[in-house]
Amino acid sequence: MKKENPAPTMKDVAREAGVALGTVSKVVNGLPVGDSYKIRVEAAIKKLNYQVNSYAQGLKANKTYTIAFLIPNTQNPYFAYLTHQINLALLKRKYRMLLCCTDYDVSLEQEYVTMAQQNKVDGIIGLTYNPNLMIEEDTPFVSIDRSIGAKIPCVSSDNFAGGQLAAEKLADLGCKHVAFLRIGSSLTNEPNKRKAGFENGCLSRGLSYEMKILSDGEPYGEFETFLKNHMKDKKLAFDGIFCVTDSLAYLVLQMLRNLNLRVPEDIQLIGFDGIRLMGDKDYVCSTIIQPVPELAELCVDLLLQENRSAKPPLICLPVTYCYGGTTLESDYVQEG
Amino acid sequence: MKKENPAPTMKDVAREAGVALGTVSKVVNGLPVGDSYKIRVEAAIKKLNYQVNSYAQGLKANKTYTIAFLIPNTQNPYFAYLTHQINLALLKRKYRMLLCCTDYDVSLEQEYVTMAQQNKVDGIIGLTYNPNLMIEEDTPFVSIDRSIGAKIPCVSSDNFAGGQLAAEKLADLGCKHVAFLRIGSSLTNEPNKRKAGFENGCLSRGLSYEMKILSDGEPYGEFETFLKNHMKDKKLAFDGIFCVTDSLAYLVLQMLRNLNLRVPEDIQLIGFDGIRLMGDKDYVCSTIIQPVPELAELCVDLLLQENRSAKPPLICLPVTYCYGGTTLESDYVQEG
Repeated sequence: MKKENPAPTMKDVAREAGVALGTVSKVVNGLPVGDSYKIRVEAAIKKLNYQVNSYAQGLKANKTYTIAFLIPNTQNPYFAYLTHQINLALLKRKYRMLLCCTDYDVSLEQEYVTMAQQNKVDGIIGLTYNPNLMIEEDTPFVSIDRSIGAKIPCVSSDNFAGGQLAAEKLADLGCKHVAFLRIGSSLTNEPNKRKAGFENGCLSRGLSYEMKILSDGEPYGEFETFLKNHMKDKKLAFDGIFCVTDSLAYLVLQMLRNLNLRVPEDIQLIGFDGIRLMGDKDYVCSTIIQPVPELAELCVDLLLQENRSAKPPLICLPVTYCYGGTTLESDYVQEG
Repeated sequence: MKKENPAPTMKDVAREAGVALGTVSKVVNGLPVGDSYKIRVEAAIKKLNYQVNSYAQGLKANKTYTIAFLIPNTQNPYFAYLTHQINLALLKRKYRMLLCCTDYDVSLEQEYVTMAQQNKVDGIIGLTYNPNLMIEEDTPFVSIDRSIGAKIPCVSSDNFAGGQLAAEKLADLGCKHVAFLRIGSSLTNEPNKRKAGFENGCLSRGLSYEMKILSDGEPYGEFETFLKNHMKDKKLAFDGIFCVTDSLAYLVLQMLRNLNLRVPEDIQLIGFDGIRLMGDKDYVCSTIIQPVPELAELCVDLLLQENRSAKPPLICLPVTYCYGGTTLESDYVQEG
């Protein structure tokens, strides 16, 4: 890059201020100097529009004001929304985000962890699926949805309470026999607690239930087969379904339509996440909403908090139920 | 951060290899040294697991291998998909992405441009809406969808051709009187050419058309009023509609449903972008697809290309039409 006017250097500032180069360096790096020197240097910096070299500063302050964010992709609407909110939370605090769409690539995740260990970034917020992630206990890391070490805080929605809330809502809305449909990582993670919460809610409300759980890689068509196997005289054996995500609920709604079942008249459905179609329009379905803006704020606060020993190992944020057209609550006016 | 084993330094490598410090420095920075020295240094680097200090390297190479990406948000599904594809294109080339969701904040956009001018990032790819963006001609910047300077390449879909294709498709599908609905920035940008392309297509095919164009801030309800004003005996004056984005098409489909109009039987509708609901499922509507992966690759290639004078000022990539359920083409099998 060629420039007509080369950027002013620290030497130019020293000449302008009439002080030694070391004095300018001290002021730039926040070290103590006499007030009169400080004023002169600052005036010279302003006059020359001198810009501190970030590499040189990085070497000294050992701070990059940059946080890496690891997420499988930003195409999934939940991930896209989470990325947006974490970006806003970082920008608010004058931090920058290094975004890494990992696409579940274990070596990429590991590469960014190494960067944090080398202080190339100040820390990491990660939604990772890597069971073998090698991470030193003192690495500044906040994990979303998965506990990866005793000293690494994990932030999550209260997935157990969310599953329970879904069961209780279906019971409140008159359901008697319900189903839980799940697909997802077999890795131990917080969202897996939705199942246990749902079972707990069903038991406490006397709801009978069945479950269909697919492992990684099994085709979604298995759910359609499951539903068909529970049809008799054109009616479904269930009057309520809880889907582990809104994304799955979207597919299940299509399957129910293909089976000529009416939602919510014949069968009520609740999802999980709180996804809005097109980013900000209708909810996909009635759903358990994850508090994404609060979750993002908390991740950033925990990561930037200096006192590591005060960091709790797991924080679960409260979820809420929201009507989204697939349950019997038509008098509720949806926000929009 | 405290560590049990301090990271090995360049001195440790020199001691291990039995060479002078300067020799290690040369190897690390890719400068010529004798082969036997090079082999010894590389073996020592490997043995000690020595990691090159990125700040120190940055000072010398003046390269950060980091690109800033400016986008209003990642919540809008088109922006989310674009972010994902640009991230993949950068990672493929071992570059990192600094993501900045600008939320149309002019000062944030300017801040990142300044970072590029100070070599804190190697360059910027930006979808910006800032008419006053101050950007020197030699700043490594690739703009998406908006020309911002003679020496700043702009990458875009062929929006004119896309608008024309929408008109031609509606004509092919039997439409006689169509409407164009648009909302968006009043700023001169590439997507605005969709209108001119559509008009051109209508004229060449003898389609009569009307337009309803809202400016920034006008409520979407104006479109509903427009449609109602064109209803007579429960029928709409149009048999085809082209919406400037899939996001608008999503809303217009709801309006048409509220007016008890059947899509595509009574009225056919084509959108623009190629958005899939939930990131990877059904198309919102029949649509003109932007080639986002190709667009992302091109942006990154242009930005990293050394020879600035060889960079073209504007590149428009070809778009394609895709059936998505809102036009009369039911024999077409949608990809899944």
